[in-house]
Order: sequence, then structure tokens, then C-alpha cells
Amino acid sequence: MRAYFDHAATSPMPEHVLNTYVRELRECGNPSSLHAEGQEARMRMESARARLAAAVGAQPAEVVFTAGGTEADNLALQGLHAARNREAVRPRILVSGIEHHAVLETAEHMECGVPESQRAELVVLPVDRTGFLDLAAAEAALAEAPERTSLVSVMLANNEVGTVQPVHELVRLAHAHGIPVHTDAVQALGQVPLDFAALGVDAMSLSAHKVGGPVGTGALVLARGLSPVPVLHGGGQERGVRSGTLDVAGATAFAVAAETAVAHLRDGTAARMAQLRDRLLDGIAATVPDAVITGRWRGAGAVAGAGSGLGTERPAVSAADSAVESGSAGLPEGRPVCLPEGWPTRLPANAHVIFPGCEGDSLLYLLDMEGFATSTGSACQAGVSRPSHVLLACGFSEDDARSTQRFSLGPETTQEEVDRLLAVLPEVVTRARKAGMVSATPRWAE
Amino acid sequence: MRAYFDHAATSPMPEHVLNTYVRELRECGNPSSLHAEGQEARMRMESARARLAAAVGAQPAEVVFTAGGTEADNLALQGLHAARNREAVRPRILVSGIEHHAVLETAEHMECGVPESQRAELVVLPVDRTGFLDLAAAEAALAEAPERTSLVSVMLANNEVGTVQPVHELVRLAHAHGIPVHTDAVQALGQVPLDFAALGVDAMSLSAHKVGGPVGTGALVLARGLSPVPVLHGGGQERGVRSGTLDVAGATAFAVAAETAVAHLRDGTAARMAQLRDRLLDGIAATVPDAVITGRWRGAGAVAGAGSGLGTERPAVSAADSAVESGSAGLPEGRPVCLPEGWPTRLPANAHVIFPGCEGDSLLYLLDMEGFATSTGSACQAGVSRPSHVLLACGFSEDDARSTQRFSLGPETTQEEVDRLLAVLPEVVTRARKAGMVSATPRWAE
Repeated sequence: MRAYFDHAATSPMPEHVLNTYVRELRECGNPSSLHAEGQEARMRMESARARLAAAVGAQPAEVVFTAGGTEADNLALQGLHAARNREAVRPRILVSGIEHHAVLETAEHMECGVPESQRAELVVLPVDRTGFLDLAAAEAALAEAPERTSLVSVMLANNEVGTVQPVHELVRLAHAHGIPVHTDAVQALGQVPLDFAALGVDAMSLSAHKVGGPVGTGALVLARGLSPVPVLHGGGQERGVRSGTLDVAGATAFAVAAETAVAHLRDGTAARMAQLRDRLLDGIAATVPDAVITGRWRGAGAVAGAGSGLGTERPAVSAADSAVESGSAGLPEGRPVCLPEGWPTRLPANAHVIFPGCEGDSLLYLLDMEGFATSTGSACQAGVSRPSHVLLACGFSEDDARSTQRFSLGPETTQEEVDRLLAVLPEVVTRARKAGMVSATPRWAE
Repeated sequence: MRAYFDHAATSPMPEHVLNTYVRELRECGNPSSLHAEGQEARMRMESARARLAAAVGAQPAEVVFTAGGTEADNLALQGLHAARNREAVRPRILVSGIEHHAVLETAEHMECGVPESQRAELVVLPVDRTGFLDLAAAEAALAEAPERTSLVSVMLANNEVGTVQPVHELVRLAHAHGIPVHTDAVQALGQVPLDFAALGVDAMSLSAHKVGGPVGTGALVLARGLSPVPVLHGGGQERGVRSGTLDVAGATAFAVAAETAVAHLRDGTAARMAQLRDRLLDGIAATVPDAVITGRWRGAGAVAGAGSGLGTERPAVSAADSAVESGSAGLPEGRPVCLPEGWPTRLPANAHVIFPGCEGDSLLYLLDMEGFATSTGSACQAGVSRPSHVLLACGFSEDDARSTQRFSLGPETTQEEVDRLLAVLPEVVTRARKAGMVSATPRWAE
């Protein structure tokens, strides 16, 4: 019996989402058509839009459906930058160093992959050792040349180390300079309460398949009044900023999956995932004493074992946890960074650990053989044996950044699965250590 | 009982495609993940790629999955142009005037929507009154400044008037100058035998939902060695030219739908659709004498009624029809333009008619009330009451271009449906004529 600990890569579709999806797939009608079938499809499309909007505190008109999180990120970065950088007056774009590749690669293309006169000036914002945005550095970068800055993009929660970011503070700082804020909330949906209006960001990327919806569906939630230059041109189906036949079935399945994921924050499912995650990390700390738990968990930059704060009486991080963290290394002393009420400091379903002396891929293969699906980090770059850019941005060494393992839980993860994983981990780590730090060749890349 | 005559807008998913899709949707695994679930997903993804490739005469490595035809067109135009126009040495791009909006709008954005130094020089290639590419004009445009030309894009078959284009001839002319050729084959799949290798184009766009696959899935078939600049940046999942989590279920359903559509060319289904289409057009010619049948059908630029060649002994166009057309207006006299063996001159499922004096939208609404789903032209622009750019490019007047109705058949269309449509059409046309040529406001746009 295999256990799936890679929900952050993609997640199984719950039966009720699948049933909704199939019901929609049996319908035929292009929402842009004027006949009855088309108009009924249009109504179902707008219903899906309204439901997804409501699930994340947005207005229906603010939802632009896309083919996924990657397209949403590209539309936000390329589109908003192009719209605000006409005449090359605002070439600067600010992103954190731990962004998803869909943001980082896009920003790097805008910096290096275009003709010289059009090149963006990319400013990478630093994070501390837990992957938490250095707000003081962000503030300084925003203030440096606001009139030349097109936008700032910082993800709401990191896909590798699970750190939830003070995006609301970033909004305050950026808006003081009139700079729009984009946030990639792909990993946050269903694990952090999202309220687009209250958060105040100008654009927010979402993906369906990370929360049990179909692959190939996502959305850019986009404040009214913003008109990014389209990335995909054509019929102009989505507010004129995104073209392509509207995917009614995908949008509806996404809306239902998002509603379910958001409900998990209230019905105890997210809190239960956080408890299982804590059980996993406690177990790792107890059996692999030199393992380093990355990100924020019961104190910043925790190192498993004695003196790390693990096993103290401080309650485990959960979705219901209103976190107040004292300033980390990169912030001015004495200035606490509060996350909004109800936000966890770490994604409830995320565990991410450095096992010193172990090649991450070795751990992955050994765990796979034992029946566990895990990841070294982002699936989007798995198969390429190189150190995680997230860990490097956090200040870890290349060796540490190649010795990671991510365990991402889901609503259906059981305590029995966690305990089974804990039972094999020490032996797996020992074997991976014996194999040493040689670079593994991905099987499929051969 | 309603009858659906809008398959060119979107088509119902056959039960066997839906079953395949659902089976795949129940699987969970990101093909970029290294664990067993990921590797199994990767194998299913590559199987889908191989099946789709085989269906269109391509190599598996030539298939780049996209979120649909629109993204494929954007990747071909934006991506190939950017790759070949580095240092702004090849700013020219050639497209026909009857392209789909996903090509035309993209080309127009490249011409007008970017900073001055990066602007493409858009050359619009003319077509004759049947929507057939003026090869002599294309030849002249290709020869004019080949060293400054990045690519030429001409659709394989038009989505409104159904005219199949001499893309093979265009390839010969363009390649003589070293210019790559892109063709939008979205409407052609399943209606024209496609052989990517034999046709010789460098890039070919496909869409799943036009042939019973899921919306939100498509492909750009891309000759090896071509490296367009990506439109969507990120994990680089598809040959590094397209990013986004691989959609295994969508790709598999697309492959199965494409196989079925291609089989229709051999099993008589396409020929049967062409016969029903001919029955429809014959019926219209008999009952609405001044109706103008657009495109190519039993002779170029046919006008229904006496003297038009309708009702002669010449066999109806069918998928099995090896068409040889004598030169039309734009071609040098005496130079016949042969389509490849087995190609129809008109899409077998396409009927498109001008009803003089009738607003197209009025016809659509009246037919809708009678139980028929039709279109004035492209669904992607439906709802916007303006004359079809395709008809204008063919040389029709604005009034003619607003008086059209498209009837697009599908494999499940029956003779009874066609006869029912023919029974109501004359009365519908009479009523539409009484309503006159006032501009109709689309219902959903209110």
C-alpha cells in the first residue's frame, strides 16, 4: 500500500469534484456562442467564476481564468510589466529569491531574453534563513526608485519550505509608492485563508490541480482597472486580457475544488493536516537528530534536536493559529512582523527537511521503493539534479540544498501513513548517507 | 429535440473519450515527479504524445502540448518570430487575411502593441473570393525580402468558409527562401488528412475540443531543431519551450479524440458528413434562390441557383475527393492549383451561406428558437455584431459579411436533422429579412 506525500506537486481529485467535472464534460456549448447551448454554457461559466471568486474573497469580475498557475504568473509579470513599462519608463521589477520557477524564469526572461532596449531591471528581494521575506530590504528596494518600478511579486507561501509571507505588509509598503503587488498563491489556497479584497494585492495566481481540481486550469485574480498586456492573443474571451475558448468544465471543477479546499480551513481538516505534519517533524527530530527542519516551525530556522525549541510546550502551527513572529535576522530588531489573523506561519500540509550527508534524490528513490511518494522540492524542476534555488536563497550551502526532502500532506493523509513513514525513515537516511553525495541521474532523463 | 450545427465552435465529447478521460483523471501523479506515481504519469504522457503524433504523421518529439489552439498559435507566431528576429533582423511576418483571431490578433499585437523598435512588419496575404490563398501574391511577398522575413502563417482550412488551403505549395515557395511555415490546422483535424512530415510545414496548431476532446488542451506540432522563444516561462516541461504542469489526462483524451477524428476520414464518417452538408446546401439553393454559398463548393465562388453549377452531375466534395481546381482570380491563368491527394477543397462538415438582406444574428436567434444551434461565423467573436473579417478579406461587402450563417456538422449529425433545418429555413429567412439589417444586440452583452 503506497502513501502519497507529494500533494504540493499535484493532488488527487476528490470524487465529488470528479462527478461535477464529468457532469460538465457531458454538456456541449461554447460560452461565446449565442445559441441556447452557448448561453447555458456562459451561465455555467459565470456561476463557476462567482463561486471561485467567493471562495477567495474576490469579485466575479476579478477572476481571469487561465490554463494554470504558470500562465497566471506569466500574465501577471509579463502583462503588468508591459502595460506599466510602455516607453520603457518603469523597467524595474522586484521579486523574491524564493519564487516559483513560473515567476523567476519569467522575470529572468524579461531581464535577459528580450532585446536590449526592452530589458527589465530585475531586483531580487532577500529572505531570511526561514525563507521569510526581508521586509526592511523590500521597503528599501521599493523606496529606491518607485517611479521606475512596474511591480513587485512575492509568493504568498513557498512551495518548498512552506513559509507564509507577510504579503499584507508588502502591499502596504508598495502601495505607498503606487507600485502594484502580485502574489503567487498557488500553494496557499486551502492552507491559508485567502481574502483578495482584505489582502489588498493587485493580482493573485491560483491553480486548480494543487487542490484536487483538474490540471490545466488556474486563474489570475486581477483587481478591476488593471489591464495587463495579454500573453495569449485571440478572441479576447477573458476581459480582453486572455484568449482561448472558455473551459466551462474545468472552471466549474476548479470552483468546487477550491470551495472544498477553503472549507478545510474551517472544518478542522487543515488543522488535522498540521497536527500530522507536526507528528512527522517531531518523529524526524527524535530519530534523525541532525536533520534540519527548514522554514518556520515552532521558532525560526529550527534545527531538530536539543536546543531547537522542538518539543517545547509551544502549540503546533495550525491553520487556526494566529501567528505573531518576532523579527528574524533580516528585520530591524524590535519590529515584530505579524501575519494577518488566522494565518499560519507555515503551510499546514508542508514538511521540508535537510538530511545532511544524503543526496535528496537518493532519499527519494529509497523512499519510493519503500512505498512513499515524496519530492526533493519543486516537482517542476525534479529530474534535474541541482541544488534548490529556494534553499540557496535562504542561505544554505549547496550540499544542504541538495540534501532535502519535502513531505506534503493532503486531506486524505492518515496517521498510519505518517507513522509508517517514520518507521522507515531512519534506515533510509542511513542507507542514503552510505550512498553519499554523488549526483543521481534521473531515470526518465536517460 | 434540438439539433447542434455548431461543431466548429466546440464539439460534444464522445463517450469513449470521456471514459478514457475519467480513467486518467482518477490517477494522481505529476509527470515531472521522480517517484513511481510520477514516472507512471510520465509514461502515460509519453504514450499520449506518441498516439497524437502518429495520428497526424509527426514524431512524438515534435508534439508540444499546449492549453489549446490559441496558445499554440501564439507560441508559433510570437515564439518563432522572437527567435528569428533577434537583433531585429527579420521583422517581417506574413499571414493571410482570413486567419483565426488567435493568429491575426497576435500578429497585430506584434505589429502595433509592442515598443517601436520591436515592431513586426505585418504583411497580409490576399485570398480570392472563395477564401483561397492567392499563391502568386504569396510568392511575390515571400520573394520580396526573404532575408528580413521571420515566418509565414496560413491556416490549413478556414473556420468560417471552410476553404482548404494549398499549404503544401506555400511550403515549397517559402522553403525556397528559407522561411519557416506555420499552419493553424485546428479546423482541419479529422476533416483533412494531416501528415506533418509529408506536408513539410515547420509548425502546426491543433486543438482538442474541436474534435471531441477536452477544452483547454491543444498542441503545437513543431519540427525538431526549431526553438521558439517561450510564451509561458517556468519549469520548462515541454522541450523548454512551454511551461506548466503536464496535463496527462487532457493529453490522453486529446490523443484518443484525435485518433477517432482521423479514423473518420477512412471509415466513411467524413464522407457521410460531406453528403449531408451537400444535402443542406442543395436544399438551401433550391429554397432560398438568392443565397450565396461561400467558399469552394462544386466550383469557385458558387452562387446558389441557376448557372452556379449546383445540381450538376459533378460529384459532391468529400473527404475522399482528390480535388483539382483550376486557377481562381488571383492565380495566373492556366496554372492549376492541386491540393494534395485525398484533400477536399472544402471542409466536409462546413456549410457557410450569405442570406442577402438578413442580419446574421437575426437568423441565429430565429434558428435558435426553432431548435437549431448555428453560428454567424467564428464563435470566438460571436456576440460582437460586426462583419466577418474573413468575408471582407474574400471581397464581400460589409452587408454580405453581416448576413452569414455557418452550419457545422459533426459525426453524430443525422439526415433527419438536416431535413428539419431545411424545412424551417425559408420561413426563418423571410422573417429575418422583414427584421431587416439592424444591428442586433447580443443578449449576454447587456
